Amino acid sequence: MTRIVIVGFQSAGLTAAAAARLYNREAEITVVERRTYATYHPCGLPFVLGGEVPNIRDLVETTPRLPGVNVRLGVEAKAIDTQEKMLEVQDLRTLQVEKIPYDRLILATGSQALKPPIPGIDLGNVFCLRTVEDGERILAALSRSRRAVVVGAGPIGVEAASALRERGLEVVLVEMQPAVLPGMLDPDMAAGVAERLAKAGIRVLCSKAVKELRGEGEVSSVVLEGEEIPADLVIMAIGVKPDVELAVKAGLKLGPTRMIAVDDHLRTSDPDIFAIGDCAEARCLITGRPLRSQLATTAIRMGRVAGVNAAGGDEVFEGVLNAVVTMASGLEVASVGLTATAASEAGFETSTARVRCLTKPHYFPGAGPMTIKLVAERKGQRILGGQVIGDGAAGRANLLALAIRKGMTAKELSQIDYCYAPPVSDSIEPLVVAAEALLRRR
Amino acid sequence: MTRIVIVGFQSAGLTAAAAARLYNREAEITVVERRTYATYHPCGLPFVLGGEVPNIRDLVETTPRLPGVNVRLGVEAKAIDTQEKMLEVQDLRTLQVEKIPYDRLILATGSQALKPPIPGIDLGNVFCLRTVEDGERILAALSRSRRAVVVGAGPIGVEAASALRERGLEVVLVEMQPAVLPGMLDPDMAAGVAERLAKAGIRVLCSKAVKELRGEGEVSSVVLEGEEIPADLVIMAIGVKPDVELAVKAGLKLGPTRMIAVDDHLRTSDPDIFAIGDCAEARCLITGRPLRSQLATTAIRMGRVAGVNAAGGDEVFEGVLNAVVTMASGLEVASVGLTATAASEAGFETSTARVRCLTKPHYFPGAGPMTIKLVAERKGQRILGGQVIGDGAAGRANLLALAIRKGMTAKELSQIDYCYAPPVSDSIEPLVVAAEALLRRR
Repeated sequence: MTRIVIVGFQSAGLTAAAAARLYNREAEITVVERRTYATYHPCGLPFVLGGEVPNIRDLVETTPRLPGVNVRLGVEAKAIDTQEKMLEVQDLRTLQVEKIPYDRLILATGSQALKPPIPGIDLGNVFCLRTVEDGERILAALSRSRRAVVVGAGPIGVEAASALRERGLEVVLVEMQPAVLPGMLDPDMAAGVAERLAKAGIRVLCSKAVKELRGEGEVSSVVLEGEEIPADLVIMAIGVKPDVELAVKAGLKLGPTRMIAVDDHLRTSDPDIFAIGDCAEARCLITGRPLRSQLATTAIRMGRVAGVNAAGGDEVFEGVLNAVVTMASGLEVASVGLTATAASEAGFETSTARVRCLTKPHYFPGAGPMTIKLVAERKGQRILGGQVIGDGAAGRANLLALAIRKGMTAKELSQIDYCYAPPVSDSIEPLVVAAEALLRRR
Repeated sequence: MTRIVIVGFQSAGLTAAAAARLYNREAEITVVERRTYATYHPCGLPFVLGGEVPNIRDLVETTPRLPGVNVRLGVEAKAIDTQEKMLEVQDLRTLQVEKIPYDRLILATGSQALKPPIPGIDLGNVFCLRTVEDGERILAALSRSRRAVVVGAGPIGVEAASALRERGLEVVLVEMQPAVLPGMLDPDMAAGVAERLAKAGIRVLCSKAVKELRGEGEVSSVVLEGEEIPADLVIMAIGVKPDVELAVKAGLKLGPTRMIAVDDHLRTSDPDIFAIGDCAEARCLITGRPLRSQLATTAIRMGRVAGVNAAGGDEVFEGVLNAVVTMASGLEVASVGLTATAASEAGFETSTARVRCLTKPHYFPGAGPMTIKLVAERKGQRILGGQVIGDGAAGRANLLALAIRKGMTAKELSQIDYCYAPPVSDSIEPLVVAAEALLRRR
């Protein structure tokens, strides 16, 4: 009988528990989680702010009843004794400390919202958007807020800005990089998203760093270079930092991204300890390089592999392509693989094509624009990445993810089978149009 | 200089002309088309009947101005002199006959709606739904019609029935096979579609052949085995027959499906003559067997290959997976590859899985059901086909098409990268759920 202990009960930990259970019916599985509630959906938080999800508590799952899985909420992991193979935990209510023996330990400790060390960061009405409590605090502040600044134009920042605007607030979205959704989009594609945000009434400021937050007790303004923006609500959405404290204390190795280093079986430097999800280093499937993935989908995919392996199986996690989708004031924006910028940084000579199509035939009501940018290796035109904007962007990114994984070229992509009916799609698939545009670049 | 002559100016012919033009700027390209108007979109016709597309003339494209491409409308191809390499044509207005010399000839003669030889088939108010004229005739008949029978529950039949029902007619949909959308769906999946049609108020009758149409001048009833259904409007949607007369007269070989036989370069038995689109035999990419594809997407893909080859290039058409999508009273239904039925008929031992997921997280408004059936080879679990019902079905079928083309197994499909955001998709992709269900069948 194997004793598996999992630290963390979010997407990664939950999936690992379920996968271990399914693989090994004899295993004794214990999950410890600091939170007093079960798995919740952080990606749903912006849509609670916008009002689309009416009740924030709907984001919290009820603890699934997995036979033989003991989920202990409100229990914090304090230390790992890797010699004795014991996890020291503390019950946060009773403060009682105990040691849980393990054969395999899975660290799914996740990440925390990044708060930059700038003056005023601890003022009232300055929030992150990561936990259910964050969401509740912002909801409570909404009614007495009129002017919001969202710092960071990644997916969560863009979605939060869209949500606050929908609630009728004046919204300024500030991004340090030269364009919105950096990492996801090249600047030429980001321009279309910024335009949509502006059309929705959001003021978008790029290439601007936040110097300071000002106010007395509560925030009253955000100071950028050369500008002070009045604000009674600030959301910091500049990213997350992996929660690696427990691992570091136990002497586990970190990788170049300062996340817990893992091999392709998701084993840490201690072969009986696995790490998964936002605290674990992923690897880019294209470049082979270490990468901060920190997506729910990556957490789930890692959880499945580590769960099986901890339970005695032999699964490999091959890496990620970071397929991402976000909604920018109603505009569906997706991305996968390398942007042209990232591909150049990784040393590829690239060839790119950008096309604009319709999502349906021109004669069909509801036909909207779709913009696709493909990035390929110049020589041989192997697809390296894609950016898609418009209804159905996510599905196209998923298809591109598969094309990239399979090493497909622009030529092969131009020959795919696809389906067509006027209410759903046009007779020439936009991805094919984009692939053909790439072919003409040869 | 190459003289390329193309017979037929629908999706296949148009695409061939454009591809030949792009590949060879010197080629002299002539297209002859019997119709007096340019390319139109037959797949849009049901949505004209339903009123979603307000003007039927919007389905007709204006003739694109391709430099060096001479499009001659209202001109019928009468005979091919394969020795002299001449196409004999007749201007349908002036009745003048002339001979056009060719170096390469491309036959894109298309197909015609099938009319079964049953009593009463020529009664008034009995229509096909294939040409713009068909659509106009049905539109004109709509206002004086109350009870419609649609014969044939393929995509066009299902869409036509849905459209007429939306217009307020009483509608009976009759299908000879045991379930709707035969070929696209296995009966277990078709049941869900039939249910939706019934919910929309359409009476669905399967396993019923039409024996006779009755009426005086105009149709008044449809006679099935054991039942006579009153009807003042009948749409025959039982399929199309390839237009191969010109090819047969010229001595070109037909294949086992009675369509024009072509090699993987889309050359007919005469190496200077190509055949593409609804008149040309396709090959199933999975079984390698000849197949009636007759889809606009196949026509376009074939047109591209034949256009380039006729212009001196060397492109291969590898075959089709028949990815199809249709709308059944608002329900998106897609299919690709082999159904379980078709796979068994082709001699495969199969393993299948059917799952039901949500299109978005359960807490997100607008989350709807999605049902997926995957068909795989029993041994090794290579994916052979998929059927998807629900919003976003087409995108999933396209992804499955790529998976099938790449010979992917259920295991590989369970490991794909995909993107997630609550307004767009759930954190576990339904295709992954389906692949995992298949894995548990091992």
